[in-house]
Amino acid sequence: MSVALIAGQGGLPASLVAAMDSPPLVAAPAGFAPDGLTPDVTFRLERLVPFLRHLEDRKITRVVFAGAVQRPRLDPALLDPLTAEILPRLMQAMAAGDDATLRAVIDLFTEAGFAVAGVADVAPSLLPGPGLLAGSLTDGDQADATRAAAIVTALGAVDVGQGAVVAQGLCLAVEALHGTDAMLAGVAGLPPQLRPDPARGRGLFYKASKPGQDRRIDLPTLGPETLRSVAAAGLGGIAWEAGSVICLNLAEMQRLAGDSGLFLWSRE
Amino acid sequence: MSVALIAGQGGLPASLVAAMDSPPLVAAPAGFAPDGLTPDVTFRLERLVPFLRHLEDRKITRVVFAGAVQRPRLDPALLDPLTAEILPRLMQAMAAGDDATLRAVIDLFTEAGFAVAGVADVAPSLLPGPGLLAGSLTDGDQADATRAAAIVTALGAVDVGQGAVVAQGLCLAVEALHGTDAMLAGVAGLPPQLRPDPARGRGLFYKASKPGQDRRIDLPTLGPETLRSVAAAGLGGIAWEAGSVICLNLAEMQRLAGDSGLFLWSRE
Repeated sequence: MSVALIAGQGGLPASLVAAMDSPPLVAAPAGFAPDGLTPDVTFRLERLVPFLRHLEDRKITRVVFAGAVQRPRLDPALLDPLTAEILPRLMQAMAAGDDATLRAVIDLFTEAGFAVAGVADVAPSLLPGPGLLAGSLTDGDQADATRAAAIVTALGAVDVGQGAVVAQGLCLAVEALHGTDAMLAGVAGLPPQLRPDPARGRGLFYKASKPGQDRRIDLPTLGPETLRSVAAAGLGGIAWEAGSVICLNLAEMQRLAGDSGLFLWSRE
Repeated sequence: MSVALIAGQGGLPASLVAAMDSPPLVAAPAGFAPDGLTPDVTFRLERLVPFLRHLEDRKITRVVFAGAVQRPRLDPALLDPLTAEILPRLMQAMAAGDDATLRAVIDLFTEAGFAVAGVADVAPSLLPGPGLLAGSLTDGDQADATRAAAIVTALGAVDVGQGAVVAQGLCLAVEALHGTDAMLAGVAGLPPQLRPDPARGRGLFYKASKPGQDRRIDLPTLGPETLRSVAAAGLGGIAWEAGSVICLNLAEMQRLAGDSGLFLWSRE
């Protein structure tokens, strides 16, 4: 066992473990435990250097990150001296945005001698390749996906969000800090007179990684819950950038999509 | 009286009339009456050509647009033959987004022989020039405004929204179809652990016109209500692109900002 999974919140870490050839060491940041998975180790950011040494002691050579970690408030009283030296770098990166934070975390682990692997390396089955995986597409859906992809690319260039909702060419919502669920709930709550006539095209939720994003951390994730929210928002389906978006429990997503007449499109 | 004001919803049309040298003819689209202003004429989009003729009969030469108009559902039974000829153009433009719709509306009025004027032409006092109009700015506020302006520029380039909320470099929200009020209510409702520590900088709401936007229609608007929402969202103030954003009742905005310790920054 030479791989450690740094497991944040949500269902992704458990899905990742299930899709991996051999079980990793599961390490969770204190306060951000994964669902359905018992961590072997818990660590605090204030004591990152001792944690890295512990991974060495356990013969870990590769590290994978999965799951959500919100920017933690740091308690200076818990800092060890070596971590106190490197933490300012990480805090500066946090202030500069998500991309900078992820790059800094990868750098810290790399400099400590670990190889940082991505989901594509350890569990490629979680990243569907191109194809229409449920339902059917109209010309309008294809045009909406093109427009949504342009919007998400523009947003990604300024390090904001990874998703957008478009219907009949009109952008109904854009993802920022609030995340996918809040955005889709907002779409579900849009007054009907603000939305284009649903009879002429239901619209879609589009998800992609940020342009130039390091694919080893924080790939966007879809799952059965996303599909339920998309249905509740009155949309026609989900499209995403093929190979860059994790699908949790794709079989269940396909079943739900079939039941509710939605499409699932892993777009080239 | 040679100017007609095409008056949509909200308080802007009444503020515009109050700030104009002489009173315009007030024309309102059916179903979208302005606040605090009684229209001289009501018209329907399905009968746009007869309405344009009516404006000619009343010796109108210039037209100003102000106030919100949501994409109307059209009733084919009400169409007159001449409007039926030009409406497909407008409907195509509506499908292509807000910018295209505004350009098409301006074109239709221009081709009918009217000069289309902007708020800057008929009521320049509603568009504050550069300056700090209330409160004070920290270095963090200035950095947040720089980041927010980059985000809004990126969004505007794909014809989405005109506003964003940034705190300590982190984008908390982005404006799409829902509009400013819904976005700020979303920020007010963000769980505290998602937000950066307010003790280190409260963040701001930034508003700008879209890059390349025709300044004669649909300039972004701020008012006392915006300021109340910004205060409720726990932000430190509002910054906007000087000369491109309408301030409704600036004196009242300054009074409220002073009372609640917020800044108002018309940014160069």
